[in-house]
Amino acid sequence: MNFPTRLVEEAVSQISKLPGIGKKTAMRLALHLLKSDESATVDLASSLVNLRTKTLYCKECGHISEEETCHICQSKKRDRSVICVVEDSRDVMAIEDTLQFQGLYHVLGGIISPMAGTGPDELNIESLMQRAAGGEIKEVILALSPNMEGDTTAFYLSKKLLPLGLKISTIARGVPVGGELEYTDALTLGRSIQTRIPYS
Amino acid sequence: MNFPTRLVEEAVSQISKLPGIGKKTAMRLALHLLKSDESATVDLASSLVNLRTKTLYCKECGHISEEETCHICQSKKRDRSVICVVEDSRDVMAIEDTLQFQGLYHVLGGIISPMAGTGPDELNIESLMQRAAGGEIKEVILALSPNMEGDTTAFYLSKKLLPLGLKISTIARGVPVGGELEYTDALTLGRSIQTRIPYS
Repeated sequence: MNFPTRLVEEAVSQISKLPGIGKKTAMRLALHLLKSDESATVDLASSLVNLRTKTLYCKECGHISEEETCHICQSKKRDRSVICVVEDSRDVMAIEDTLQFQGLYHVLGGIISPMAGTGPDELNIESLMQRAAGGEIKEVILALSPNMEGDTTAFYLSKKLLPLGLKISTIARGVPVGGELEYTDALTLGRSIQTRIPYS
Repeated sequence: MNFPTRLVEEAVSQISKLPGIGKKTAMRLALHLLKSDESATVDLASSLVNLRTKTLYCKECGHISEEETCHICQSKKRDRSVICVVEDSRDVMAIEDTLQFQGLYHVLGGIISPMAGTGPDELNIESLMQRAAGGEIKEVILALSPNMEGDTTAFYLSKKLLPLGLKISTIARGVPVGGELEYTDALTLGRSIQTRIPYS
């Protein structure tokens, strides 16, 4: 690309380091900022730096937090006998949005992926084992994405957790609500028949 | 969305103000920054602020520039009798990438769009008229996007420019190179037959 100035080139190079943003999109965003008020760019930049430099992680569950312990771990209303294990904080937010879970979380901070070079040691698994062995926990729900990495991680965790004698479950896989049966892939549909539930 | 902290909410709200980026993508980008080195965020933020606060616009053509006059207007190698009128600096870069144009540019800074509330007065049309009337210019190429707004703007400009007795042209519309004839829309294909060129 034929950049008009070094400033534009530098900004485009920085923006296009973000995941899913290529050079063309980065250029579009840079020109958008140039056309907008200066305060828009300054506010955006300072909110990014604030986010990165001031965000804490809960020392219990690893979720993004304002304080040492996140609001979920602090809450008196949560069921402290169930831990839901997720890949990252986005998953906590997604599950919280459903209003269907009242227990605690444990954020792994990633997923076992030999392709991406992420092994078990890079994840918050040691702290999960300590929490699980603490005596208060009765059930661990493995809420990992239903793909190769998620299944590998779930298998690894279940192997480590089973000796503790806890109940271990995974989230149900099946036909999505609102989905069309005929367009569901064979694997999902097959799984949904195998793990069929009583019609009550 | 159930944001874990005010910092995350603020960052997501700022990021999702960018065009084409919704809350979910913004959240993904925010989490990416949280996972990356602090320097990545600081560098990104400072490059955005530098871009916005230090970028100049060429006083001749309106293109993004490091100095008062851009490197294209300064160049001794350019043909000063032809001006190519474009919507914004991205178009200059796209045309420069083709290496097929040796003249000067004029960046309108937008396009006439009643829907978006952009009228001729918001665009750099006055300065274009002054350049066109200066005596040095012999041809004005209207290189605007082939859509409703582009055609409207081209029509408006041609009405203003024609009395000056200059040659006025627009970029050719036709079947894209590498395109399949049968998948080309009827309007484009029809236009490409009407404006057919001698096979030499």
